[in-house]
Amino acid sequence: MRTLNVSLDSRSYPIHIGPSLLAEAALIVPFLPRPQVAVISNTTIAPLYLEKLTAPLLAAGVRVTEIILPDGEVYKNWETLNVIFDALLRERCDRATTLIALGGGVIGDLTGFAAACFQRGLPFIQVPTTLLAQVDSSVGGKTGINHPRGKNMIGAFWQPQLVLADTGTLTTLPDRELSAGLAEVIKYGLIRDGSFLTWCEANVERLMARDAEALTVAIERSCFHKAEVVADDERETASSGGRALLNLGHTFGHAIETGMGYGQWLHGEAVAAGMVVAAELSRRLGWLTAAEVDRVRTLLTRAGLPTEWPATLTVDRALELMAHDKKVIAGQQRLVLLKRLGEAVTWKDAPEADIRAAIESCRG
Amino acid sequence: MRTLNVSLDSRSYPIHIGPSLLAEAALIVPFLPRPQVAVISNTTIAPLYLEKLTAPLLAAGVRVTEIILPDGEVYKNWETLNVIFDALLRERCDRATTLIALGGGVIGDLTGFAAACFQRGLPFIQVPTTLLAQVDSSVGGKTGINHPRGKNMIGAFWQPQLVLADTGTLTTLPDRELSAGLAEVIKYGLIRDGSFLTWCEANVERLMARDAEALTVAIERSCFHKAEVVADDERETASSGGRALLNLGHTFGHAIETGMGYGQWLHGEAVAAGMVVAAELSRRLGWLTAAEVDRVRTLLTRAGLPTEWPATLTVDRALELMAHDKKVIAGQQRLVLLKRLGEAVTWKDAPEADIRAAIESCRG
Repeated sequence: MRTLNVSLDSRSYPIHIGPSLLAEAALIVPFLPRPQVAVISNTTIAPLYLEKLTAPLLAAGVRVTEIILPDGEVYKNWETLNVIFDALLRERCDRATTLIALGGGVIGDLTGFAAACFQRGLPFIQVPTTLLAQVDSSVGGKTGINHPRGKNMIGAFWQPQLVLADTGTLTTLPDRELSAGLAEVIKYGLIRDGSFLTWCEANVERLMARDAEALTVAIERSCFHKAEVVADDERETASSGGRALLNLGHTFGHAIETGMGYGQWLHGEAVAAGMVVAAELSRRLGWLTAAEVDRVRTLLTRAGLPTEWPATLTVDRALELMAHDKKVIAGQQRLVLLKRLGEAVTWKDAPEADIRAAIESCRG
Repeated sequence: MRTLNVSLDSRSYPIHIGPSLLAEAALIVPFLPRPQVAVISNTTIAPLYLEKLTAPLLAAGVRVTEIILPDGEVYKNWETLNVIFDALLRERCDRATTLIALGGGVIGDLTGFAAACFQRGLPFIQVPTTLLAQVDSSVGGKTGINHPRGKNMIGAFWQPQLVLADTGTLTTLPDRELSAGLAEVIKYGLIRDGSFLTWCEANVERLMARDAEALTVAIERSCFHKAEVVADDERETASSGGRALLNLGHTFGHAIETGMGYGQWLHGEAVAAGMVVAAELSRRLGWLTAAEVDRVRTLLTRAGLPTEWPATLTVDRALELMAHDKKVIAGQQRLVLLKRLGEAVTWKDAPEADIRAAIESCRG
């Protein structure tokens, strides 16, 4: 087991990474203000891992409520959140109950937001079961739900007490979701760690083959970067750089996700295509060479990810969707671009013509 | 104009109290990260005060979006919150937009929770127009909505940037709501300020007659106490005392509000009847004399408030509702009781038989 720490004063918390952590009740119990938890999972993950998690907790004398939700990004909404609230009220959960998110990013975001809002705030624990959630969404405290007009529009910053990244859960992850997680892994290399990018290029086939050792390295390095960025800029208030740099490819990616309809593209897939647009735009601003853009495209392709802009999403529609993005400041688009491979920058002066051309040139 | 400060490190904020503050755009503008606000009000208050607030803002070059909601506690729910979100998205509001709550406690709670959740957090300003909101709900950062199973079950701690308590708005307040506000004013006397309680007894008729000077004293003294308590215990985490003491009468009151159906009893009315039960229970524990309980009952009656438990709400049902209250810790009822007039205490050892008897003896 490897352990990292997210340093946030009184809200600091550990991330444990390793095999079979799910069943280690001893890692969880010390964090419970009262031996009562509500485990929130979905219909895909629960049959695989719920009992592995709950049996040791029950054996340790913890009262466990199970809340099983339907699986999918389309359920990341108010109605599903209310299913959680109803269950918590029915089971008389209160501020000393700990919520445990067992699942991917959707379960983590829903559970975290439920924890932030229920009775104005409960403790919660992240047990991410997808690569994407392990390297990104379970760390950093961003929680929330989607709104018909935009992704993650409603939410809160709410830090977990603990993150348990059990690498064993990745053995049952579908290939497409493994790839989606690799998009975020590669992102850390692109934005702040050129040598990790090189490592990814050398090891992408091992990662695709779910080599346990390679995955552990990738998760630990990713969480290290995420924790460092979040510790410096918890609430994404830095006027430049900071947490915003984690959004490389995300503004374009969110436009794809929303424009194509939630659930059609996986988040990581949209981010991958978005990162190619960001790289292409960086080339147009004179920061990357065409060869470097190709290097990005090639690595993402080897990781099983799409690199082309969806043919049916027009540039006009994409720009309209991007204008609703949370990262718009004072009406001005603040994009994350690459000064070089391994160094990102937030940039608000990209000419619209260049943005349009970058999207067009990435079209399939 | 009188000014108090709520001391919460980086989240500190001023409370201004006085006549005609609504129209003082100069008090608001310095707090706006961008000259753009969304004013949230209701169909009762907007015709009276909205233009008084917005005209000077518009003259100062501030872009103003108006969001007018239906009036009433029954609308303090997710559907109404979504009306706010829809309008904010339609008007392309973002993290630099400031929300302004113009109205009573329902508008303040809805607006504050919208500010807490929209894009994971916007700044907001409270402009309370009821006595209850001016002396209680606009100060302290508690925001939220009701759930069919309980009041304020979903919410957040989210502090405003500024509170403007314009005493002029109280001239149009219905008598019943004025009285409801006085319940909370009297509460501050009961829980931590015996001399203020005596002042209330001497001045209750002036307050009922809306004597401007008396109201200003009552609001300032109330906000002083609220600010001091909140500064010591922002998130209601103190294991005893602290912010919980503000809940004198509230556990019983919430049972009345929920049990009788939202909107039948005003919050302040339910708190008044709840404070009488708390006083009666305190007598049974040997802390108050029967004469002191009568003193409480008499003052509340002079303030136009109900002091009898509703005849149709059974004790069994009340205890069931109270078990769902957020102030239940580890399944144990933590009540706020009076050690003497002017000193409250949180108490978890009140025997159920005494709780039942106290409610029964207050029945109409």
